[in-house]
Amino acid sequence: MRYELYYWPDIPGRGEFVRLALEASGADYVDVARLTGRGKGVAAMTRMMAVDALARPPFAPPFLEAGGIVIAQTANILQYLGPRLGLAPKAEAGRLWAHQLQLTVADFIAEVHDTHHPIAVGLYYHRQKPEARRRTMHFLAERVPKYLGYFETVAAANHGRMVGRRLSYVDLSMFQVIAGMRYAFPTTMSKLEADWPALSALHVRVAAHPGIASYLASKRRIPFNDDGIFRHYPELDR
Amino acid sequence: MRYELYYWPDIPGRGEFVRLALEASGADYVDVARLTGRGKGVAAMTRMMAVDALARPPFAPPFLEAGGIVIAQTANILQYLGPRLGLAPKAEAGRLWAHQLQLTVADFIAEVHDTHHPIAVGLYYHRQKPEARRRTMHFLAERVPKYLGYFETVAAANHGRMVGRRLSYVDLSMFQVIAGMRYAFPTTMSKLEADWPALSALHVRVAAHPGIASYLASKRRIPFNDDGIFRHYPELDR
Repeated sequence: MRYELYYWPDIPGRGEFVRLALEASGADYVDVARLTGRGKGVAAMTRMMAVDALARPPFAPPFLEAGGIVIAQTANILQYLGPRLGLAPKAEAGRLWAHQLQLTVADFIAEVHDTHHPIAVGLYYHRQKPEARRRTMHFLAERVPKYLGYFETVAAANHGRMVGRRLSYVDLSMFQVIAGMRYAFPTTMSKLEADWPALSALHVRVAAHPGIASYLASKRRIPFNDDGIFRHYPELDR
Repeated sequence: MRYELYYWPDIPGRGEFVRLALEASGADYVDVARLTGRGKGVAAMTRMMAVDALARPPFAPPFLEAGGIVIAQTANILQYLGPRLGLAPKAEAGRLWAHQLQLTVADFIAEVHDTHHPIAVGLYYHRQKPEARRRTMHFLAERVPKYLGYFETVAAANHGRMVGRRLSYVDLSMFQVIAGMRYAFPTTMSKLEADWPALSALHVRVAAHPGIASYLASKRRIPFNDDGIFRHYPELDR
């Protein structure tokens, strides 16, 4: 099965959570908007999102074309891919638990995004800086310890993995969360990360996974940058 | 099967999306935190969320106990209940599509919440009023037409239903979204709602469903109020 991933070509963003799953498992996939030529590029992605293009249109990227269906919403894509790529438990209770954690990751990611866009996604950061500073102060003091403390509890209780006994897509997403938080908030993370040893160890183990190590060393891995979810604005990292 | 729902007893909030599914299908359920007595009430809910209480702890309510497992995250609960309560397609592609829409509803709901809490969930509204006004202005002008326009397209293309040919949990959630938006932003909605005739008609049809009509007339239905997601602050409804 060849998977076709559609996502913005210049940011890791939400698409990266899907890329990590495809890469870790060595899946056959095409990152459509990053290619050029007929039926490729951002134009191909935009065409798929046009009204009436699909009977079941995505609201936003990322979306995945697989076996004749188009699936959107990052966590939904991952729950579809998980058992197929060997990255999720097969039994229903385990799949629901993995998905529950992934949805909590999604909630956290939305809060990360709103640290630099507390007023409107359609406004530049420099138009909402005072609000961003205020929101980020609360985010780092209250929300980060709450979310990462929760994820730490889960990983610590499960021998350092988020779900089950093998690598899962939730582990891969947690790797990206830790990497992104270190990029965006290095000062804060250097102070706080000792509180989350299981997550730090998980980050190391995922980075050393052969499929991921090779991906991280490749040009396919898009570096964090200041157009994505995790942005490094020093004034926000008190 | 008796379902046990855990959610805050005084607000519709995210729990209401689950209540609507249970009520529409006449499921046997207990709304644990709204009852009194041993093993009931908010204390019972808080106990379930305590560290080490469960091997798979919820991050936040709502959560549902069903057949020996505890499932959290509203959309995850609904995708579990959907096929069991006859409120979702049975085939995988249809289930994924219903869940994809539900996750988009969840994204919208999070944006609704942040209109009155743009800075921090832990701060009172009156501590973030200027930011709330600014965020809400953008929300009503840009985000509401984008989301509700998308949902309208989906419903209009499918004979007024969100998914499939029968009532689904996504229809029930969309009913709650329309009801909530009318409560929170009556002025704005009276101006804009003519743009979404399929959603208005869906609201009427869901309200007339026997299980829902009887629920709405009961004391089990918690009215919208200013502690929930949808709050009516006239100063935000330009």
